[in-house]
Amino acid sequence: MTATSTTMTGRQRFLAAANRQQVDATPVWFMRQAGRCLPEYRAMREKHAFLTMARTPELAVEATLMPVDRFGVDGAVLFADIMLPLDGMGIAYEIRPGIGPVIAHPIRTAEDIDRIRVVDPEEGTPYVLEALRQLQAALGDRAATLGFAGAPFTLACYLVDGRPSREYPKTKALMYGRPDLWDQLMTKLAEITCRYLEGQARAGTGVVQLFDSWLGLVDPVTYAERIAPYTARIFSRLREIVPTIHFSTGTVQLLPEIAATAPAMVSVDWRLPLDRAWDLIGSGMGIQGNLDPTLLMAPWEVIAGGARDVLVRAGGRPGHIFNLGHGLLPETDPDQLTRLVDLVHTTTAR
Amino acid sequence: MTATSTTMTGRQRFLAAANRQQVDATPVWFMRQAGRCLPEYRAMREKHAFLTMARTPELAVEATLMPVDRFGVDGAVLFADIMLPLDGMGIAYEIRPGIGPVIAHPIRTAEDIDRIRVVDPEEGTPYVLEALRQLQAALGDRAATLGFAGAPFTLACYLVDGRPSREYPKTKALMYGRPDLWDQLMTKLAEITCRYLEGQARAGTGVVQLFDSWLGLVDPVTYAERIAPYTARIFSRLREIVPTIHFSTGTVQLLPEIAATAPAMVSVDWRLPLDRAWDLIGSGMGIQGNLDPTLLMAPWEVIAGGARDVLVRAGGRPGHIFNLGHGLLPETDPDQLTRLVDLVHTTTAR
Repeated sequence: MTATSTTMTGRQRFLAAANRQQVDATPVWFMRQAGRCLPEYRAMREKHAFLTMARTPELAVEATLMPVDRFGVDGAVLFADIMLPLDGMGIAYEIRPGIGPVIAHPIRTAEDIDRIRVVDPEEGTPYVLEALRQLQAALGDRAATLGFAGAPFTLACYLVDGRPSREYPKTKALMYGRPDLWDQLMTKLAEITCRYLEGQARAGTGVVQLFDSWLGLVDPVTYAERIAPYTARIFSRLREIVPTIHFSTGTVQLLPEIAATAPAMVSVDWRLPLDRAWDLIGSGMGIQGNLDPTLLMAPWEVIAGGARDVLVRAGGRPGHIFNLGHGLLPETDPDQLTRLVDLVHTTTAR
Repeated sequence: MTATSTTMTGRQRFLAAANRQQVDATPVWFMRQAGRCLPEYRAMREKHAFLTMARTPELAVEATLMPVDRFGVDGAVLFADIMLPLDGMGIAYEIRPGIGPVIAHPIRTAEDIDRIRVVDPEEGTPYVLEALRQLQAALGDRAATLGFAGAPFTLACYLVDGRPSREYPKTKALMYGRPDLWDQLMTKLAEITCRYLEGQARAGTGVVQLFDSWLGLVDPVTYAERIAPYTARIFSRLREIVPTIHFSTGTVQLLPEIAATAPAMVSVDWRLPLDRAWDLIGSGMGIQGNLDPTLLMAPWEVIAGGARDVLVRAGGRPGHIFNLGHGLLPETDPDQLTRLVDLVHTTTAR
């Protein structure tokens, strides 16, 4: 922090914004901050596979703390992956370098769906809960802990198509063509996700984010009918327990319908200026975003101009968490991120 | 065609719709109809490389005619690729299987931009013009010939990043960070694209489509300032010569700004219902679209329901060309496409 005095800890600032209360400065974190652009993270990855790190609490906590120490962000997002709950579901998968998650036996039939196990995270993914407890202890009040999960639609994309795709044709064909099977699958995934996030809240997580990464592939009519009810169920179950953030990209066409699923906040990408996106979400809901991560490849003055534009459009209204519109790119210069956190804090200090 | 009588040829029907005139039935074609899902196309591809086919007029015409013969579509889009003009620019590239276009020496500096040659297609890509002339002769009035080109922004994405990407960070960093170089690059690409499409019109093409495939990556402010002026220049130059269609996907946030570049029609994907997209484009402009290509993986009754919904939302207003919201998927059953063309024609016959 520069010459401004602050009265809140990072954790307080983050949780206040998530609850749409007054803050001493706008809180900030970066999606994918734990990894990729950090040399200390890449050094860890030379020694450990990605999933090994995610399944080993000590390693996950170490990676989680790196960006908190280096950038001074107000949120510490657990080093993890949206595929981890598959361990509890009894679905074998691997993360292939340069490709992404690949499912050994994709879910296509009623029998496949029946075989998916619905368990509590204490049984299915105990290492995630242990990592969150260790993280809380190591972090103190410096930053809020952030847990997360994949949303049912995005999990279904991976489970049904079986690997990353631009179109997810098998998943969407199931959604369009077999509403009975689709409901069974989405019901199970929503229940698993609820339990997973409830477990994270019990382990002390300050905020949870639901990643519906592939939601940009659908129209509002399909969304409202085939996806939103399951998302809304999750936010409803978590409402009294922990603040929630809905994440997606490329969903300008869905923003009012996403807001209707009633998370605490909606994370938006850079495809609309923040004030226009906030209008679509509704002024009664918090917003997270929305700097374009590719802007971080430009010279500092261009980055600073973009960040100030986001803050001007937020206009100091309560309920804004500064973030990128999507994950950090590996090419990002970490020093620019430290400057950016400082800019957000000093520009908004009150 | 089923029991309805038609009074127009496919070519007449297509051109009338492109000019927002009355039609005897809604014209239809499918993006990527020439290839992928057709066994006769895959047999050709076992004998010839993709670029060999595109650069050999006889082979390009043969592939172009396949879907016209098989599906009865009203538009015959030339078998070609948006990268072909690079031959005239003096930029070496290849199309790598499973990856896509890869540029030998990506364009990053003022010197790189200076070296791009601006030539007429008679010199740079004579085989495209020859293919269009042969196609016209073979096709007669059965269907309208459709030519196309990549839009300057999408070409810049390939040239600057050098290969397909989800984010095109190097291109966007140049656009954000070096507006001077960006203007030089986009000015050259717009001029090359104008000449390329003017040449296609001189060779007798009925309609041309401008593919801005990666436009979904930008917000409306950036679009209006850094991209739209070059697109508008192209449509302005072509206005008196040939009807134009603007294509993009994932651009709900840009539809009014895209319409302001003044093509004859705007092609929209399935992310908004057709009537809502048409409202954003403006009722004074034609529209192409907008069935979700993944819907074609569902049973026929679901496909038919989706197609009828598009037609109901079009409401028989002049200036609608039925198409998918994006390219055909390779898994599509060709017989469903024949049924779909028939459904569109018979449902809308007047």
